Amino acid sequence: MTTAAAPGASRPAGPDAEVDGGRIAAHLARFAALSEPGPGCTRLAFSPLERRAHAVFARHMAGLGLAVGTDHAGNTLAELPGDGDASAAVGTGSHLDTVPSGGGYDGIVGVAAAMEVAEVIVRAGIRHRRPWRFVAFAAEEGARFGQACNGSRMAAGLTSAADLPGFTDRDGVTMADAMAAVGLRPDLADRSRWRPEEWHAFVELHIEQGEVLRSRGLDVGVVDVISGSTRLRVRATGRATHSGGTPMHLRRDAMVVAAECVVRGDAVARDPARQGARVTVGRLTVEPGSITTIPGEVEFFVDVRDVDPERQRATARLLAREFAELAAARDVELVTEVIADTPPVVLPGWVADHTRAAADGLGLPHHVLPSGASHDIQQIGHIIPAGLLFVPSEAGLSHSPDEFTPTEQIVPGVRVLLRTLLRLDGADR
Amino acid sequence: MTTAAAPGASRPAGPDAEVDGGRIAAHLARFAALSEPGPGCTRLAFSPLERRAHAVFARHMAGLGLAVGTDHAGNTLAELPGDGDASAAVGTGSHLDTVPSGGGYDGIVGVAAAMEVAEVIVRAGIRHRRPWRFVAFAAEEGARFGQACNGSRMAAGLTSAADLPGFTDRDGVTMADAMAAVGLRPDLADRSRWRPEEWHAFVELHIEQGEVLRSRGLDVGVVDVISGSTRLRVRATGRATHSGGTPMHLRRDAMVVAAECVVRGDAVARDPARQGARVTVGRLTVEPGSITTIPGEVEFFVDVRDVDPERQRATARLLAREFAELAAARDVELVTEVIADTPPVVLPGWVADHTRAAADGLGLPHHVLPSGASHDIQQIGHIIPAGLLFVPSEAGLSHSPDEFTPTEQIVPGVRVLLRTLLRLDGADR
Repeated sequence: MTTAAAPGASRPAGPDAEVDGGRIAAHLARFAALSEPGPGCTRLAFSPLERRAHAVFARHMAGLGLAVGTDHAGNTLAELPGDGDASAAVGTGSHLDTVPSGGGYDGIVGVAAAMEVAEVIVRAGIRHRRPWRFVAFAAEEGARFGQACNGSRMAAGLTSAADLPGFTDRDGVTMADAMAAVGLRPDLADRSRWRPEEWHAFVELHIEQGEVLRSRGLDVGVVDVISGSTRLRVRATGRATHSGGTPMHLRRDAMVVAAECVVRGDAVARDPARQGARVTVGRLTVEPGSITTIPGEVEFFVDVRDVDPERQRATARLLAREFAELAAARDVELVTEVIADTPPVVLPGWVADHTRAAADGLGLPHHVLPSGASHDIQQIGHIIPAGLLFVPSEAGLSHSPDEFTPTEQIVPGVRVLLRTLLRLDGADR
Repeated sequence: MTTAAAPGASRPAGPDAEVDGGRIAAHLARFAALSEPGPGCTRLAFSPLERRAHAVFARHMAGLGLAVGTDHAGNTLAELPGDGDASAAVGTGSHLDTVPSGGGYDGIVGVAAAMEVAEVIVRAGIRHRRPWRFVAFAAEEGARFGQACNGSRMAAGLTSAADLPGFTDRDGVTMADAMAAVGLRPDLADRSRWRPEEWHAFVELHIEQGEVLRSRGLDVGVVDVISGSTRLRVRATGRATHSGGTPMHLRRDAMVVAAECVVRGDAVARDPARQGARVTVGRLTVEPGSITTIPGEVEFFVDVRDVDPERQRATARLLAREFAELAAARDVELVTEVIADTPPVVLPGWVADHTRAAADGLGLPHHVLPSGASHDIQQIGHIIPAGLLFVPSEAGLSHSPDEFTPTEQIVPGVRVLLRTLLRLDGADR
């Protein structure tokens, strides 16, 4: 649904008029500089570079006079006390890690928005009754360990300290070890859990990572539902032998089986009966990886997303069954394992209503849309009221070095965010 | 064709009775120890480990009193002068490099056989009229640089110094630079070319890398034709973007296109009209390789083998055309490049006849068969008469850590090899 502001609606100048695109651009540039070499931005979950980005966020907030701390899950929280009697906070924030060769906007724009909101509030001396909390979540991207939204899942109590040794990256490093290596305390991660009574509502600003807003020429989107994601690790084991010495009928080729599975996954997601489902194989490795050896082992990962939780899991089960049949037909062994499973989340309408009213007040037409990507508020949304506000993605690109949103398209979103938080500060549920 | 020795055929004890399995096993063990860490044996073309293996071969031959030298292509040659007036040599040998995570038999058995033949000849003081040359060819495996049989191709004048900077490994190191890094002189590689008038015939002993001999219970095979190989490098370029944010119909997924190409390649090779053709995708890499990013770029390599040169090239052309169509249908760019092209080689019958007669003389039933794999004698066969003798491969496995031939199945082959060389020494063409 798209709503234009009513003609002649009042647009009073508020503190959001102080939102400064130059400062936001400077924050984004400072974070973009913290990257491994290579195309785009690479700042992986629970890496030293991610911690350095959190330190940039912490210094900015401390410089504004906020109380700043990092929890055992690696989330950095900055708090501005309220001057009223309401102890349940309003919050905003996002994450600072990236996928390999990702961009400088996914997550980072939401953290830069939080930094700018805090700066405007402090500089303008705006009074608020509730505590305001600004959060940089840790390790949102699932690219390294398979599971996404790790910091926010620990805050929501969805992932516990006991789970952390069970996730490994491609080098065999466990999440627990990666956390310890950057000075965190994975054994104490359960202490990072948020108490719902301390929160009134949380709104995240994020780039859309799709083309809906761009194609409609809109500055902001308000999300009503976030897709779930079931992730599979599949290992096909055939027989590695000579590409010249082995006739076609004697082959047990793990690569051909994996290729059939990739093609099948794409076809299943394109079935009109699954409108809105998305199936992706983004990572696949071939062993031994020699031109003249039939692959003996191929490992690949499948990301199944849907806004319908039943259909999401049914699709994952269907793929596991069909993959097994494809492998059996070629005498290849195949094991499919569910490594992460997050259901879709419907966001509460009253939080979204405040965001829509804030956009209306600024005369910004907006659109209500679903999110295909996972987000931190999807996790904390399990325990506290949460909202999600989109700004446009140029060409819909994300998880790519070409990810881009011009500053002039970020500023309207930050203004809506600030107005939303002020509305939430004043309102009870 | 399988020929049993005639009943009552004479089997005079010859010097080949001195062939010692223990010594051969010791050579194989010494070479197997020269490997990078990891499963099986990894001793890549033009690596320091390959040069150390050549040094082991050279020391053994020098210890027996042979004149030993290494040419600028990295081939190591050891010569035993003849005491007759015939200056054209008989020769034997194979290669010492392996594919990544390969075995300890492919190539190495032929070099160990040459070491044992030289030892038997020297120890027993066997007279021969021609010079005998024992060769360890350099860089036979195409796994590192795409082109196979590099040392023997330079010996045959099929690859020249000017070509060497044009081959690169996965780290971007050129063959010329890799050669220079291990002390060779790629700029002088053309001086390694053999003069055909200096050679009478060359016979290589090799493991079969297939299951024909094992399935028939035979000790030796005599090769009549060696498959050619056309190798393609294919690069599919789509658009890397978010796996959740991008609906199926807006994707430009390089992985799905590559998967369709792999499946198509397999199907083309299984077409009954191409009986004997072999198509393999053994190496494939996905960028950026993140679970939550649609692959923007996939590179893969296709190995097309056939005993029919016209059909081999027609298959490669057909695949390039079909790959382009598959990519276009998904709005993905695709570039196919021929990185190596070797035609099949029919080996001269008169050399094979000596090998068959030698086997008959030992009462060893044998089988005449084609070779699916490439071999060094395929290259030098372009300029001098060449033969190829197979010993069995356990379960047909090769280019695998499980590659294996028991010593008791190598010894009969080495005896046949020694008898073949003696027959060739005595005979004119």
